Formats: sequence, C-alpha cells, structure tokens
Amino acid sequence: MSTKGFHIALVGATGAVGQQMLKTLEEREFPIRQLTLLSSARSAGKALFYKGEEVIVQEAKPESFEGVDIALFSAGGSISKQLAPEAVKRGAVVVDNTSAYRMDENVPLVVPEVNKEDLRKHNGIIANPNCSTIQMVAALEPIRQSYGLKKVIVSTYQAVSGAGAQAINEMYSQTQSLLDGKEVTPELLPVGSDKKHYQIAFNAIPQIDKFQENGFTFEEMKMINETKKIMHMPELSVAATCVRLPVETGHSESVYFEVETQGLTAADIKGKLKDAPGVVLQDNPDEQVYPMPAQCVGKKEVFVGRVRKDLDQDTGFHMWVVSDNLLKGAAWNSVQIAETLIEMEIVKEK
Amino acid sequence: MSTKGFHIALVGATGAVGQQMLKTLEEREFPIRQLTLLSSARSAGKALFYKGEEVIVQEAKPESFEGVDIALFSAGGSISKQLAPEAVKRGAVVVDNTSAYRMDENVPLVVPEVNKEDLRKHNGIIANPNCSTIQMVAALEPIRQSYGLKKVIVSTYQAVSGAGAQAINEMYSQTQSLLDGKEVTPELLPVGSDKKHYQIAFNAIPQIDKFQENGFTFEEMKMINETKKIMHMPELSVAATCVRLPVETGHSESVYFEVETQGLTAADIKGKLKDAPGVVLQDNPDEQVYPMPAQCVGKKEVFVGRVRKDLDQDTGFHMWVVSDNLLKGAAWNSVQIAETLIEMEIVKEK
Repeated sequence: MSTKGFHIALVGATGAVGQQMLKTLEEREFPIRQLTLLSSARSAGKALFYKGEEVIVQEAKPESFEGVDIALFSAGGSISKQLAPEAVKRGAVVVDNTSAYRMDENVPLVVPEVNKEDLRKHNGIIANPNCSTIQMVAALEPIRQSYGLKKVIVSTYQAVSGAGAQAINEMYSQTQSLLDGKEVTPELLPVGSDKKHYQIAFNAIPQIDKFQENGFTFEEMKMINETKKIMHMPELSVAATCVRLPVETGHSESVYFEVETQGLTAADIKGKLKDAPGVVLQDNPDEQVYPMPAQCVGKKEVFVGRVRKDLDQDTGFHMWVVSDNLLKGAAWNSVQIAETLIEMEIVKEK
Repeated sequence: MSTKGFHIALVGATGAVGQQMLKTLEEREFPIRQLTLLSSARSAGKALFYKGEEVIVQEAKPESFEGVDIALFSAGGSISKQLAPEAVKRGAVVVDNTSAYRMDENVPLVVPEVNKEDLRKHNGIIANPNCSTIQMVAALEPIRQSYGLKKVIVSTYQAVSGAGAQAINEMYSQTQSLLDGKEVTPELLPVGSDKKHYQIAFNAIPQIDKFQENGFTFEEMKMINETKKIMHMPELSVAATCVRLPVETGHSESVYFEVETQGLTAADIKGKLKDAPGVVLQDNPDEQVYPMPAQCVGKKEVFVGRVRKDLDQDTGFHMWVVSDNLLKGAAWNSVQIAETLIEMEIVKEK
C-alpha cells in the first residue's frame, strides 16, 4: 500500500473472479492507497494477501464504502443491486461485473479497447460486459473501424469456470468418476437454479443460463444485446448459440461476420487484427498455429486465429476467438476499466 | 448365417467403424448368406463373432471379393483406392466409408434419407459421406423439401472417436494424467500425420484434418463440398468451422441456415423435423430438453433441438444437431445404404 493513490474496494473478494481481480491489481501495480476487501457475512474474517500484506475480508455493508474511490463488484447480481447504489451514494465509482446493470440505459457497458469514451457518461455505475461478449467485441472492433460491420453469427465453446468454482469441481470430480467406471449424478451444470442437471465431463451442453421466451438462453441474449450496446450499433444483426464444454478456463468462439466493404481478403482482416489493442493474432495454418483454451489461461489478451474469407459471401469472414474468461472476460476488463477511469481523469486522486 | 440372402464382405473389420458395422448388421438382422471379414495382414487370423458364430478375419486381397454381393469398406482411403476396383471387377457393389471416392463424379454420395435415388446411378462404388456431413444433411433435407435452402453456416463440436480408437485412448490417458497433476505429451491429435500435436483433454482444437490452401481444413471442405453434392445444390452457400472436443463419441453441430420461404416460424421448422425419417426432434426449452453427445451414443438417429428463428433475418434459423458419429456418421449409414440397395432391387439375390 502506498500513501498516494486510490481507495479501492473489492466486493466478492473471496470468489473465483474476486481472487483474479486481487491478483490483477497486484500485477498491474495499481495505485492503491487503501484496499477494502468485502464479502458476504459467511466469508468475512478470512485473511487474503495483497503484495505480501494481510488484508482481513469484511462483511459488505452500506457503510463499507465510505471514502472509497472505486468499488469493483463481483458478488452476484443481487448484491450489486443492493449495494452498488450505496457505494455511489458515498462517492465511489462502481465497476460492476454482474449482469444487474448492463442493459440499463444510464449505465455505460464498457470494453476499453472498444468504447472507453462511454466512461465519461457514467452516473456512478459502469458495467463490465459478459465474458463471451467482451472477447468477441474486442476482436470485431478493429475490423468494424476500418471495414464496417453488418452481421455477426457466433457459436461459443465455453469453459466451466464461467459458472464458478463449484462448476470446476463438478467437472473434475465427474471426470474422475467416469474414468473409474462409476456413475455420476450431476448437481449443478448447466444452471444451478434450473430444474435439470446434466453431465459436463466428456459432453457438450447447449445451455448456458436460463431459457428466455424466444428460445434463446439468457447468455445468448446477453451476447446479442450487449454487443449492440457496446458497439453503438442497435441495427447490427447478431445471433449466438452458447455451449458449455468440459474445459476449465478459456472461452472459444467460432465467429462469422459480414463487413460493409466489398472485395476484402483474409489478409486485410488479419492486418487490422495484428495491430489491434488487446488482441493477439495467432494465425498460421502452415505451422498449425491457432488459439486454443489450454494455451490462453493466465493471459490478458484476446487471441484470434483461423481468419478466412467465406467461399460464397464476398463480405463474409470467419474467425476463431479465444480468451481467458476469468481475465479479459471478467477480472482484467474490470481492472482495466478502473485504470482507464484514472487515465482519463474521470476518477481523480483526492 | 442363412442359406438365403447375400454374400457380404467387410473390409477393415477389426477397426472402430468395422466393429460397429458388424454389430449393426447383426442388430438389423441383415439377410446374410455368407460373411467375409477382411483386414490388413497384421490383423488377419483374428476371430470375430457374428450372431454367436466365430468368423476368422482374412487378409484383404483382390481374390477375397469373388462371389461377394456387397463389400463395405472402412479401412482407410488407400485400401479403398487399391481394392474397391478389384471388388467391383468381381461383381460386388462397394459401399466405401473413406473419402477416396466421395467427390468422384461417377460415384454417388448417399445419405438414404436425402438422396437414395442416386444409388441407381452407381458404377460399382457408392461413397458414404463424412460423419459430420451426414447428420447435418439429414436434418436439413426435410426443411429444404418444404421451404428451400439458400445458406448454411455450421460450427462443429466433434468427438475424438472420429479420429479412431487411438485418439480415444489418447484423450483418456491425457485426462487421467492431468487429473493426477502430471505433464502430458500429445502424440496424435489433431492429425496423426501432421507436424504438431496438441492436448485434447480439457481443451478444444480448431483443426480436424489438414489445412488446405484456402485456410479451411479438409474436414471443413468435406462438409462444404459433400453437402452440395448430396443435396444436388452446387449453388448452395455452405461454410464450416470444425472443432475437436474432449468427447468420446457424438458429434454436435451449431447450424445456422436460411430458407427460401419468407415468414416462417420456428414451429414450422420443428413441424418438418418432427416427422422426418431418421430424425428425432428433442426440443423443449421449458423442460431443458435438447440433444447432447453423452445421450446419443449407441443410437442410430440424428437428434435435433434448440430450433429458433433468427432475430434479424426473416428466413434465418438456428438449430443444434447431434448424432453418434460411429453409427449414423459411419457404420449405420453404410449398412443403411446396403439395405436400401436391396430394397430398391439394385442389388438382387443371386
């Protein structure tokens, strides 16, 4: 801790994303004057470490936010609904990693590489998009800037860590049971609070979050609606199919997109991705170079490969987008928003 | 064995698909008068069982096909190239499960639910399509018949058994090693004969078969070209992204398609799938009913769910297609072609 810098609060500090946030703040040498770690009553009292110093986790209450400059929330939608307004009331800027405020007209939904200017319009709360949306828009934005964008169709290959630490445990214990020739009793995935649960080990489940009336899941609708909001393109045609896989961390996406510009080649698209902020182009079929979830874990970038032109549609292209869903998909994007708030002097040192 | 019926030869009888073919012939009570099991010299002499009777596997040679009515080939492309013409020369009709003849103009490429009439045009050899193509066209055909078809974009979720028995072993042994905290040394997947090998356990590999000059893999080009040929639609727009997953058996596909007819609903599409031959509609979001690979193993049908209308494109729809890649994708489709050849009296009892 330094005598200069900001007072940062972390809500949900003991969770999977909270832990990654703490680690990311440390790695980034975030200018922290005071660090308040908050959680539910159940986890309060636990000791976590930040740069070697012990920090005791406290129960999150309205008063916890007195004097806080930036509060990073990642403790579920209901906690955000309850406590984010309390933090704002006390002068904090909230970066919320839940879906609670994402589609709220008064809340900017931000991926810094895409729409950091939206941060200027905040009213206290800034929403961090859904993990699968973030990596896709980060890859699409540099293409859109040069060539426009008309249509996106994405099929996802999502890791279990997106469903929390218990889902990771369920995947590994099911896997070991099946290898031992034992029966398994799924209890959590695809959605803990839904009626039925299915085996994730050695399987693929085409359901992430609950079904909506239109037959799409909530995860699919998040990708559709958040993409339009972040890119400021209500007219953009977006469709998603979201699938859970037996992968611990790292979401992959097969993305088909159509640009406005005619006559482009795959090399044109790759040229834009190569120099894009936060994006790493890993694309060399001759050397079998393409991104994979097992290789992206612990990395902050969005990896793109398999870029190729559609064989029938002149403006159509395909690509394969992979990123660590706990980092760029959650913790890193939130910390990056906090860094950008400071850089842009939207939050100033007191 | 009966005194009536046909003389059937199975080339590649000891392989993963060959074993499934033998099992399928038995289950279907295929009218067999004589059964000749053939393999490479290495596996010759092995004893297999058909309806409780021991059948000794012989080395496949040109003379092995004397008197054979139907020869089912599943021993790799080079064996088919070498021996299928020898079988035809001796009066057999060959059903070839390799990619050797699929795009040959003189060879019908057949999924019985879609284009069995093409069997009448055979010149001795009939090709069985690629596993991922078969299940997709079986689901698309009933829709095309009523509503036309303009465009298909598919992203696949393919099981390791499509790469053979050794790939299954590699997946399980890697999985156990990783659970034990050991390092793994990939040796086979994604493509045994390619330069680099990647971990399949807890991963997703966006490469099936080798890369072509246009940036698509051979598997992707098979799906594209075979779909056009089977459906007699050279003008159809088809694109594919093929991905290997840590699933033993059961390919899944996220399929976006556009029909010719305007103003349809998802219910219209489901109505056509519900009564389609070889297709089972498993689609009830309220009850979390949708197909998954773990539930399709050992079943001959193509399972379809998650049917929904695109939110932007009036003629666009999405669906999720799952099938046992060793059965409808290989053994069952081959045996079904043989059954259809008899039903249609293209092959007659001698």
